[in-house]
Amino acid sequence: MKIIEGSITAPEGFKAGAVCSGVKKKGKRDIAIIYSEVKCQAAGVFTTNKVRAACVDITRKHLEDGQAQAIVVNSGNANACTGERGVKDTLEMAGLTAKLLGISPEDVLVASTGVIGVFMPMDKIRDGIKRAYEKLSREGGHEAALAILTTDLVTKEIAVEIEIDGQPVKIGAIAKGSGMIHPQMATMLAFITTDAAITAECLREVIRSSADISYNMISVDRDTSTNDMALIMANGLAGNRIIDDPASPAFKRFKEAVDFVNISLAKMIARDGEGATRLIEVKVVNAPDEKTARLIARSIVSSNLTKAAVFGKDANWGRILAAAGYSGADFDPYKVDVYLGEEKMAENGMGLVFDEDKARQELEKDPVIIKVDLKAGDFSATAWGCDLSYEYVRINAEYRT
Amino acid sequence: MKIIEGSITAPEGFKAGAVCSGVKKKGKRDIAIIYSEVKCQAAGVFTTNKVRAACVDITRKHLEDGQAQAIVVNSGNANACTGERGVKDTLEMAGLTAKLLGISPEDVLVASTGVIGVFMPMDKIRDGIKRAYEKLSREGGHEAALAILTTDLVTKEIAVEIEIDGQPVKIGAIAKGSGMIHPQMATMLAFITTDAAITAECLREVIRSSADISYNMISVDRDTSTNDMALIMANGLAGNRIIDDPASPAFKRFKEAVDFVNISLAKMIARDGEGATRLIEVKVVNAPDEKTARLIARSIVSSNLTKAAVFGKDANWGRILAAAGYSGADFDPYKVDVYLGEEKMAENGMGLVFDEDKARQELEKDPVIIKVDLKAGDFSATAWGCDLSYEYVRINAEYRT
Repeated sequence: MKIIEGSITAPEGFKAGAVCSGVKKKGKRDIAIIYSEVKCQAAGVFTTNKVRAACVDITRKHLEDGQAQAIVVNSGNANACTGERGVKDTLEMAGLTAKLLGISPEDVLVASTGVIGVFMPMDKIRDGIKRAYEKLSREGGHEAALAILTTDLVTKEIAVEIEIDGQPVKIGAIAKGSGMIHPQMATMLAFITTDAAITAECLREVIRSSADISYNMISVDRDTSTNDMALIMANGLAGNRIIDDPASPAFKRFKEAVDFVNISLAKMIARDGEGATRLIEVKVVNAPDEKTARLIARSIVSSNLTKAAVFGKDANWGRILAAAGYSGADFDPYKVDVYLGEEKMAENGMGLVFDEDKARQELEKDPVIIKVDLKAGDFSATAWGCDLSYEYVRINAEYRT
Repeated sequence: MKIIEGSITAPEGFKAGAVCSGVKKKGKRDIAIIYSEVKCQAAGVFTTNKVRAACVDITRKHLEDGQAQAIVVNSGNANACTGERGVKDTLEMAGLTAKLLGISPEDVLVASTGVIGVFMPMDKIRDGIKRAYEKLSREGGHEAALAILTTDLVTKEIAVEIEIDGQPVKIGAIAKGSGMIHPQMATMLAFITTDAAITAECLREVIRSSADISYNMISVDRDTSTNDMALIMANGLAGNRIIDDPASPAFKRFKEAVDFVNISLAKMIARDGEGATRLIEVKVVNAPDEKTARLIARSIVSSNLTKAAVFGKDANWGRILAAAGYSGADFDPYKVDVYLGEEKMAENGMGLVFDEDKARQELEKDPVIIKVDLKAGDFSATAWGCDLSYEYVRINAEYRT
């Protein structure tokens, strides 16, 4: 596998276009279309929030047949908590995009992110969709990556190439999300494109299991949102033999590459968490089962006290252990070792005399690596998050645009 | 019921003494003994954290017979994650206190709060216990309230009087806790004394159900701790007919008074949350069942985004609804109304045009009252928390003392 130039439009046959429609202030790009020249197999995973935007339900419905050909996405307005009018506006976004592209509205997936509870300014959106359509090109990936941002500081983009059946297969992706990030799809969007030939069923398995070890293992503030989704579209133009068996080596290779893409984007999202100064990586090793490892890793990376301690470069392993303790996982606290980078801070649940300077050096690194060894089995899990800073408070105490 | 002067020593027969042992810096009181002249019926509730300090397990054991006569408590050091030596030190604290008082070590309850993973400086503790014993007096309640504080800014104390069988019955209490506050006993201590005559069994029922609607309904930062407990001791000196039936009017009256005491302390704790500028009260009404109401109230009051919005006086009802949505409770988002104080912000899950000035005025009040009406039944629940400020980050990014 190699990392290649480009992002969402790196795979064969994909185009993207993005413009400023005026939904976001300051002339920022806020609407994008991602389009495949040929119809794709497609799948997605969605927020678990009971309060969902219309686009979540409609996109899920459009994916029922496992096919899609375009995504239309806007930032600046989530079109959530907008009732029947929200549904109508989402359907209009799909319909208008489909009409321009000459495809069926059911083959258009819709995503929105931004402020909740405000009606979509459809005049701007209609105009924006038309202009985004006109800008569709093989070079539009980066512009699309810009158009989906909200409080993000940087774009999240990646593309890789692998070989299947002697054919080069490309996977490209963009993502956004920096506040409201928490396991189970927080305010987070990820769009993955590939020219692999693969069945919708296999694609569903890939995105589900890959999201579980990437987007579902990051936390910025434990607030999950109304709009989140990760979508994957595969158009088959790479010409490999169709991947239709989850037990096949081709499936495994493809899945590994998608995992790499998603974990890379998940880490970019965590690192760009609102107000973050450093990425935190929490590894739980030697757990009796995967669930235990995941619960503990996520609990630690979500702990406000641990996050504030990292911001303050305070080697407070007690908060790490306490966060493990309230994770809901069953484990023996008298067997746990805690490491900060290379430095062992606690052994068998008890503090060690450690080198304060070295511990502080570990806390100045980016990422800060926390390892918790349960010494109780062979399973492990990794979660990512960021420190909690003054800036997080400032960003979220002000009106959003 | 009337509120009376004093706190933990207001009920007949209770004394307290507190001194500076030197565990906490800056000459602050850090060790206290609370003592009843006669043996008490006693009960407690404890942290659910897997990682527990020795004092939690030992105090729970000492309560197995439903009896106790004294509490010894220190702040500045939690004696958690300190292994066998922590157990030995906790037992020594109980033993020394018992010897001084001429009672059995099993009748002494031990509580500690403060930094995790540091061995107890037993020289200071031994000396402190002796001096606290010498200071035991009927006037010592406030000093004990001071001695249990950590990052708290103010003491939490209350006392009330009710009448049972024509006899005045007093209940007094102190509490601490300002960071690591979350449902299920966060870093929080509460000690309740009463001169009521009541069985240990009835006392267990009172403290369990009362903690559920008070301490288990507050959240400062979702970090639950290793050391928390709420203890209640009843010495019977009021001379009422012993309360031994949970269905009796006397039990009900006593329970109501204890609820008032615990809810008052819980609100004081939330209001004094680390960095808090205002108390937040979240009422969920017309829920189909109590669990649904509790889950949603706790989820909203725990949401970093909602807390930061209150700090910034941003009438962001969308974050409130989103927090309800990820609470895990089952409800119809299209039926929910959201109020900020008197102002209705959203109806049937959709935003209303509201008066921005009035909404801002509601957000400047203390407490800020958030009401969520599910319009789906007769159950309700209330949770308390505080806003999320720069100061919270500052406090928790610095080394603790």
